[in-house]
Parts: sequence; C-alpha cells; structure tokens
Amino acid sequence: MSGENCLAGLRILDLSQFEAGPSCTEALAWMGADVVKIENPKVGDPGRTAGRTDANDALYFLQYNANKRSLAVNLKNPRGLELVKALAATADVMIENFAPGAIERLGLGYEVIRAINPAIIYCQVKGFGAGSPYENNLAFDMIAQACGGLMSITGEEDGPPCKPGATIGDTGTGMLMAISILGAYVRRLRTGQGEHLQVAMQDAILHYIRNAFAYMDRTDGKAAPRAGSRTVGGGNPPIGVYPCKGGGPNDYVYIYTSAANPEHWNRLLKVMGREDLIDDPRYATPVARTEHRAEVDRIVSEWTIRHDKHTAMHLVGSATIPAGAVLDTREIAEDPTFRQRGIRQTMKHPAVGDYVMSGWPVRFSGQAPAITAAPLLGEHGEQVLSEWLSYDAARISELKGNGVVG
Amino acid sequence: MSGENCLAGLRILDLSQFEAGPSCTEALAWMGADVVKIENPKVGDPGRTAGRTDANDALYFLQYNANKRSLAVNLKNPRGLELVKALAATADVMIENFAPGAIERLGLGYEVIRAINPAIIYCQVKGFGAGSPYENNLAFDMIAQACGGLMSITGEEDGPPCKPGATIGDTGTGMLMAISILGAYVRRLRTGQGEHLQVAMQDAILHYIRNAFAYMDRTDGKAAPRAGSRTVGGGNPPIGVYPCKGGGPNDYVYIYTSAANPEHWNRLLKVMGREDLIDDPRYATPVARTEHRAEVDRIVSEWTIRHDKHTAMHLVGSATIPAGAVLDTREIAEDPTFRQRGIRQTMKHPAVGDYVMSGWPVRFSGQAPAITAAPLLGEHGEQVLSEWLSYDAARISELKGNGVVG
Repeated sequence: MSGENCLAGLRILDLSQFEAGPSCTEALAWMGADVVKIENPKVGDPGRTAGRTDANDALYFLQYNANKRSLAVNLKNPRGLELVKALAATADVMIENFAPGAIERLGLGYEVIRAINPAIIYCQVKGFGAGSPYENNLAFDMIAQACGGLMSITGEEDGPPCKPGATIGDTGTGMLMAISILGAYVRRLRTGQGEHLQVAMQDAILHYIRNAFAYMDRTDGKAAPRAGSRTVGGGNPPIGVYPCKGGGPNDYVYIYTSAANPEHWNRLLKVMGREDLIDDPRYATPVARTEHRAEVDRIVSEWTIRHDKHTAMHLVGSATIPAGAVLDTREIAEDPTFRQRGIRQTMKHPAVGDYVMSGWPVRFSGQAPAITAAPLLGEHGEQVLSEWLSYDAARISELKGNGVVG
Repeated sequence: MSGENCLAGLRILDLSQFEAGPSCTEALAWMGADVVKIENPKVGDPGRTAGRTDANDALYFLQYNANKRSLAVNLKNPRGLELVKALAATADVMIENFAPGAIERLGLGYEVIRAINPAIIYCQVKGFGAGSPYENNLAFDMIAQACGGLMSITGEEDGPPCKPGATIGDTGTGMLMAISILGAYVRRLRTGQGEHLQVAMQDAILHYIRNAFAYMDRTDGKAAPRAGSRTVGGGNPPIGVYPCKGGGPNDYVYIYTSAANPEHWNRLLKVMGREDLIDDPRYATPVARTEHRAEVDRIVSEWTIRHDKHTAMHLVGSATIPAGAVLDTREIAEDPTFRQRGIRQTMKHPAVGDYVMSGWPVRFSGQAPAITAAPLLGEHGEQVLSEWLSYDAARISELKGNGVVG
C-alpha cells in the first residue's frame, strides 16, 4: 500500500472527457478516490478514439483513465439524466469539461446539482474564464498555450512561436483543479461546506510562466521574448543545449552555469581542459561571458562535440555543474530504472494487453501508486449502481433493457 | 472568503527554496495553509536574489512565496537545529528541496524527523529519483526538461531541441507534490498516519508528456519527434500557427481543425471565402490534407496574413473552429479582464510596492484566492515562535540575541 488508500471513500462523479478533466480525476484515482466516469453508451469519452489505429481504446485514453470505473448512461434519455442526478446526490465531487454552456443545457448545471446536494464540490474546466472576451470559444490544449502566453516564449529567437511538447493547457490545468478539489474537500470534512470550482485553461497557463512575467516586469516592460533552449531572458552563458557526438536530432547536452555560483564556469573550464582560460577577462564574469556569448558557446561546443551526450553529462555533472543529456521518449522508455522505480508500470488491459506507461511520479514510502486498467466502456455499470445507489439486479436489468444505461 | 480558509490549521514547515518546493507550498498557502519558510538569516531563500536588479526581494521570489510567513533560523548553530526540530514536532507537513544528501547531513533527514513526529508528512523534491543513475546530480528546471524528454519534443522539426518557456520541471513538479501532500493529509485526518513523499523533477516531466509516449507506442516505436507549433505526431492540417498582419514576433493565430470533427475544415473554407475548395478531393479528408500539407498551409496563410491576429481569432473562433491568437506576456498583462476576474492581482509589498502578478487561477464560488505579500526575510519570527511553540518575549529575545534566529 503506497498512497492508494489516501482518498478511500471519496466519490467522484466524472463527466469530463479528453484530458484536462480526466488527468485531474486520474490523479485522485491513483490516491484511491472512487472515480466513476459517466460516458455516452455509443462511443464513450471521445478520448477513447483519439489517434486510434485499431478497434481498441486509444493509448491516449489509457494514459488519462487508469484506476477509474465506467458507467455508460444515455443523457438524452430523461431517465438517464435522473440517474446522474441520483448519483450526484451521493457523490462528494462532480466534474465536467464540456464546451461552454453544454452542461447547463443538459440540465446538470451547478444550481441544479447544488439543490440536490448542497455539500457537493462541483468542478468546471473551460478554455476561457467567465468574463473573458473569449468565454464562449472552444479551446483545446494548443489554443490555451497560444492565448496563455506560453507559445510566445517558446521557440528559437528568430523563429515562429513553438508549442511545447507538454500538454500544459490540459494536464497542467488538471493538476491545478486536483489541488483545489482536495483543498475544498479538506474544508468539507471539517465544515460540511460544498464548493463551486472553476478553472480556465488560458488562466492556468499563466501559473506556469510566471518567470516570464517577472522578467518582463524587471526589464523594460516589453513582452518576454523566445530564447531557444535558454531560460527566459537568456541567462548567462554557457546556458542551453550544446551539440554532442552522433549528430542525431537529440544528440545534445544541456549545460547550465548559474550566475549565483561563479565556480560553475571555472569547474567547466577544468572539465574541458581549458584551464588556460581561467581568469581570462573576456570570460571571467557572467557579464563578460554574455558580451562574448558566441565565443563562449563555440568553446563549449568544441568540447561537447567530441563526446556522446551521456559522457558529456557524466563528466560535467560529476564536476558539480548542472548538466543533462537531451533524452528522447525512446531512450526514457528503454531506461530500466524508470520501471524499477515504479515511475513507469505495466497496465494489464483486457483488450490492449500489457501496456507500459507512466504513472503517478510521486512516491509514498518509496513506492509509486499502482496502476490498474483504464475501464472498458460501461464496464462497471452494475457495480456502481449497486454500490452507490443500492440498486438490485432487477432494477439494473430494467435500466439496461430500456437503454438508460449501456 | 473564496477558498482561503480551506486548509485552515494545516501547518507546513517549509525548508524549500527557489521554485519547485516554494510553488508547491504557495499553492497550499493560497488555500489557507500556514506556511512558515525557514530561511538562512544572512541571505534567505536564494530565490530572493535571483535576477534581482535592486536591493529588494526579487520579483522571482514574489511569484512563489505569496501568502507565506518567514522565520530566519541559523541551521549552523546547534540551537537553530533544535529549534527546527521543535517546529517539526508541531507541524503537519515538512518539505525540502536541497541538493541530494544535504538535509540528511544537516541532521534533519526523514528518520530523524519521524522519530520526533511520527504523523508528519515529510516531503522531498530532487532532480533525479533514488535509484536513478543520476540520483546524486544537481538539477534545475532546464536539466529536468532535458532529461525528462520534454526538450526532445519541443522546437522546429529540423532545428535543435528547445526549452519550453514554462517551468514544468519546477512548478510542474511542485503541483504534483501539492496533490500528494493533500492526499496524504486527507488520510492522516482519518487515520493519523504520517507519510514520506518523494518526487524527482525528471520523473515529473514524464507526467506532462504522456501523449508523446502514446504516439511513440502507436507508431513505429521510434522516439516522438519535434513538430514546431503542431501537436505531437503533427496532427492533420490545418494545425499550428499561421502568420497575421503586423509581422511582429507574435503576430500569429493558432488554428486547429480536429480530425474528430470533419466540419471544421468546411467551416474554415467558408470563413476564408474559399467555398470553391469544398469537396476538392485534394483537401476533403484529413489524410488528403496531410498529403497536401504545404498547399493547405499556404491557402490558410494567404487568408490569415490579411487580418490581425485578434480579428483572425474572432472570425475563425466565431465559426466554432478552435482558434487562438498567440498572445505575449505584455498583451496578457494589459488585458484588464485578467484583473477583473482575479487571475492577476496586486500584491501590496512593503518594500517593492504594489506589484501586479498572477495568483491561483482556480476560482472558488467565483473568486480566486486573495494574494497577500511574500514575507520579508525573518518577518514573522516572533509570531511563529509564539504561535507554534508558545515562546514568550524573553525567550524569543534571547534566541535573537544569541544569533539562533534572525
């Protein structure tokens, strides 16, 4: 047991789809919350088909729905809606991330649910916030990254805006909602008080780029620029990726010499066998090195290109200078220590088979929470209706027969 | 009151510095936890001086330390160490993110603290996990981004790896720890059980790039590549940033036509006045458009370049196609709706003055938690020693006089 029992007894009624909502509820499921996905009986969460290459649930879906249960309910049937309300009456948390206005049109908006269950923690994830000029716009991860300022500070200095490979608009937002849900839940345990939580993906992006705002504020107030592989504002050289032996797209090592630690540069000169440059006034201070950035980068590159990235990381890192090889997804997947440490685990899935994926990376008493399979569509209908609503077999059978549940 | 009382009574002894730890405890402080920073009496958290241009605390520091208190303690003095242990005995949570091995060398490792307070939730953030080949290496945000796979999937297709402008290695890690702390705290409220939580920044990065692993797994098993402004795997065109009128570095609009919604393309053709291309077999399906990517991008760019990015976003977005202007930090700072909605608020700081910054973006009953000032170094010494340890004025005065506290 390594964290999987933390949230035992916490019932989450999960109407969310794709990633921003599901990443949030999955984090809570890994810590033991009972997360019940309410899905359309025909196709389920549209994430089940995203990027799919065969008839199974998409690998995309598996990433964000581990450790949950699924109940397929037809929300176009009035009895289906009543069923969801009955579940909401017994849930601690309800969450949705439909397009703006959709949940209210379904008749499951906050005011309706609060009237049924005043203590519920009702959660909404949208692209833009209520009061934003774009509050009715559709959004996906990349739209939030564009409108939240993140793309403006990602990419080469003289190139177009790039989208970070991480889904900060989706999973980044989901994590902020998960923290807020647990905060509200702690209060509820104390006071019985419910809560209405709302987050916009655009707003969530701002949380992750606060250094760029600080940089803007402390310089000339102009927008923070892009800086390639360097930090916002550029930092002081050496900083960034330097090319290594091999010449592949990721044969680079990141080297960072901190302005706060002047010894980093001298140590690096020793590693590179360039003791001749110690105390050279062109490079002796962060300011001097910034003035001679191109030369400094050339000196470092001349050394890094003679080593593969792992060796370069080892040699520089061992000298107590921050350094990191640019690892790609394949190299990470092939590093056995991620599996040994439980950071990547095997999901045993009844249709997909054994699938190795990343789980919750925080370890509880040395162990990451165990991954269990993402649910098949409607897999847990009987279980959930029996456990949450005490329905008997006859009643469940009737609901199935009449197409209320899948 | 809008969330600020959620965690009332939760005591966090915070020995963390820079960003990964402080971003975590700040999230909890915004929801009402009593976060006490333990700082070196001479210089405090090194984040106080990061990028600083005057004698005040750095704007960097303000971002990550709102709503906290500060107690300056000399940890090189044995009485200072004893004081921290006394505080740990009454704390619910203790957190640190020093270099590997440092907290244990200080004599404040997990085993020591657990012996004093078995119910404590003891939290450690490191660059690399125990058991990783790099477990003794130093790491900062950018090293984690390099070694966690994120830089390998960020940047232009034919360019070098880029660093996303967001600090996923730092704040991204901090958010995962915050969720885990609250999970463990919920269990502790129920059972009294303490916990030892550990997270590595490299491992945390994997959590945010799961789509890249899914893409790798469902294609040929080769590493996920970089894709410029497009999604991992490239998506189907139109997708990505398209140039707009103005020609500035961020005069682009993001347009996304989902493979899951074939109507997006037809709607876009109508917006662009290119109804002549509806049903053109070269562009009629996602597969066809992928084969003619360059032509599709040219057709879209010819239209976008005639509009400023806001107009383009409005016209495309209003047609129910996901679209977003690439906004820079200045444009966001100047949009009054962020302040109206409480996403950006004024921190009233005794030394810096009024400073507008981003706060917690999740709204509780329509309101974001209120920002209060980041603490001056040692500002709350008397308060904390009195409230947490019931020390009287004479005792506090003696500790100050003897240099145990600052």
